[in-house]
Amino acid sequence: MKKADDGILAAKGFKAGAAAAGIKSDDRLDIGLVWSETPAAAAAVFTQNSIVAAPVVLSRRNVAGGKVRAVVVNSGNANCMTGDEGRRHAQAMADDSAALLGAGEKEILVASTGIIGRPLPIDKVRAGIKAAFEKPGTGDDFATAIMTTDTHSKSVAYTCEIGGKAIVIGGCAKGSGMMQPNMATMLAFLTTDAAIATELLDKALREAVRTTLNSITIDGCTSTNDTLAIIANGQAGNPSIDEENDDYKTFVETLRQACLDLALMLVRDGEGATMLVTVNVRGAKDYDQAKQIGYAITNSPLVKTAAHGKTANWGRIAQTVGTLGLDITEDSLDVGVENPADDELIINVTVQLGDAEATVYTCDLSKDYVDINVEYN
Amino acid sequence: MKKADDGILAAKGFKAGAAAAGIKSDDRLDIGLVWSETPAAAAAVFTQNSIVAAPVVLSRRNVAGGKVRAVVVNSGNANCMTGDEGRRHAQAMADDSAALLGAGEKEILVASTGIIGRPLPIDKVRAGIKAAFEKPGTGDDFATAIMTTDTHSKSVAYTCEIGGKAIVIGGCAKGSGMMQPNMATMLAFLTTDAAIATELLDKALREAVRTTLNSITIDGCTSTNDTLAIIANGQAGNPSIDEENDDYKTFVETLRQACLDLALMLVRDGEGATMLVTVNVRGAKDYDQAKQIGYAITNSPLVKTAAHGKTANWGRIAQTVGTLGLDITEDSLDVGVENPADDELIINVTVQLGDAEATVYTCDLSKDYVDINVEYN
Repeated sequence: MKKADDGILAAKGFKAGAAAAGIKSDDRLDIGLVWSETPAAAAAVFTQNSIVAAPVVLSRRNVAGGKVRAVVVNSGNANCMTGDEGRRHAQAMADDSAALLGAGEKEILVASTGIIGRPLPIDKVRAGIKAAFEKPGTGDDFATAIMTTDTHSKSVAYTCEIGGKAIVIGGCAKGSGMMQPNMATMLAFLTTDAAIATELLDKALREAVRTTLNSITIDGCTSTNDTLAIIANGQAGNPSIDEENDDYKTFVETLRQACLDLALMLVRDGEGATMLVTVNVRGAKDYDQAKQIGYAITNSPLVKTAAHGKTANWGRIAQTVGTLGLDITEDSLDVGVENPADDELIINVTVQLGDAEATVYTCDLSKDYVDINVEYN
Repeated sequence: MKKADDGILAAKGFKAGAAAAGIKSDDRLDIGLVWSETPAAAAAVFTQNSIVAAPVVLSRRNVAGGKVRAVVVNSGNANCMTGDEGRRHAQAMADDSAALLGAGEKEILVASTGIIGRPLPIDKVRAGIKAAFEKPGTGDDFATAIMTTDTHSKSVAYTCEIGGKAIVIGGCAKGSGMMQPNMATMLAFLTTDAAIATELLDKALREAVRTTLNSITIDGCTSTNDTLAIIANGQAGNPSIDEENDDYKTFVETLRQACLDLALMLVRDGEGATMLVTVNVRGAKDYDQAKQIGYAITNSPLVKTAAHGKTANWGRIAQTVGTLGLDITEDSLDVGVENPADDELIINVTVQLGDAEATVYTCDLSKDYVDINVEYN
């Protein structure tokens, strides 16, 4: 496996466009469209919030068909808590994209991110989609168009060999607040030219996400719009991955690395973030319990403010772990701290409940987080 | 029921002293001792954190005896995660207090608050206890001695009539960070001259606390040292409350009001707080579920930063409620907001799961919270 360039356009046979449609208050890009030139398989995971945005409802339904040509995204407005009108707007985004691409309307995924509860300015959005289609650009244009409070775009691409053919997995992500993805991160999109059966693509995605984009938190808040999708068009010409063989393992490993890179980029660019905090939990009963402990620590405002001071206050870590109702006492808890770099903190926590381990990533809690979220109203 | 003066010394037959023993880095009061001049009943509730400080272990054991003469408290050091030495130090605090008062060592409750994981400077503490005993002071001296990051002391007292006699319930509390009490607040102590059976005192305390000191949060972090105790010495001369009659109801009502006043004082003085945020949840399946929803909202950093901007962002409230895995969707959630004062926000949330309701109180999340907790290391 090695790195490649141009993020979501690194794989063969994909195009993308972006437009500044005026959904955001300034001239920034706020519409992105990425598509495969040929029919493609797809898999996606979405937020587990019980309150879901209209585009999530639509995309869940469409990805179930297993065939997806494109993802259309707007930033600046979440199209969430917008009722029937919101559902019609999401459908219009899919319909327009399908018409432009000559695809079926069920072959389109839609994603939105931004403020909750405001009607989408659908005329601007539709004009933006047309503009994005008519002027294809770079992968970074698309990665920039999906941003909200992110300070920079986040793209990744890896290549590896499968069945004697070089395949590429590339993608991008956004999200720096309202971030504790549960099934997916705020928004992340991946493309690959690998040929792979839809059900294995789905399985690979879930496997890759569990320890990467589903193991991060910025502020413990699971968004209503989380969407992570991957589109595979098979243009690499590899023999299709149709069973869980070594090729599948290579694919998962590469996909996991791409997702991990994106996850760490997201955390490092968390709202107001100055530190990357990695929490390794060992000695738990099972993976879920290890992750629960990791999330308790990474969501503690006391741990996060201590991290902002570039230290780990182990009293606060112990306090946090003690609230979980698990059989963990002063005598069965070990806390160690490493400072591998000035902007990195590693917290190693060992309990005595079993052999399982997990790693969770977060950032510090700074005054800038407060500023950003007071102003974002 | 009406208000009375002098907090923890408002009831008959109680004395208190305080001393600056040098546990804190400056000359502030850091030892408090409050005692009944005569034998007294007691009840207490403690943290549910599985990691508990040495004084909590000792006080849990002693209060089980039902007879308590005094509470001795130090601030500046939590005596938590301090092993066997910490347990000996807590015992020494009880032994010294018992000797000074001519009481049994099991008639003393001990509480500590401050930084976790540092050995208690026991010689200073012992000298401080002696000084506090030898120079009794005001209720406010005691209330001041138990403070850590609190910006002011917090005292309350109410009087009511029971069996033709005026009885008094008074007390004080501290705590402004690491605050989501679970069974009790960080530290709160109450005294009463009412005569009441120990088991009813215990029941009354739990009843009063559930909707007051156990319904607040500052940062969602349950301390290892939470302790709430009440001592009743019977000096008001009322016929002893020995059954759940109208006298008991009057007692509970007065006690609940005292606890609510303290709870709101704590929240208003939360670290960096500028706003009191009251979240009323209606339409839940039962009280616990209503409280769960209330706590989810009051612990959301996005809701709390919005509150700092003096508004309630209802998209963020919906997002938070949606993460709970309950059957709550866009169509079954109603959110209303009131602004009764410039420093108060009331959030009314109605769901459609049943008839139960609960109220939870919190403060906003400000840059000062970050400053305080970066520096407190």
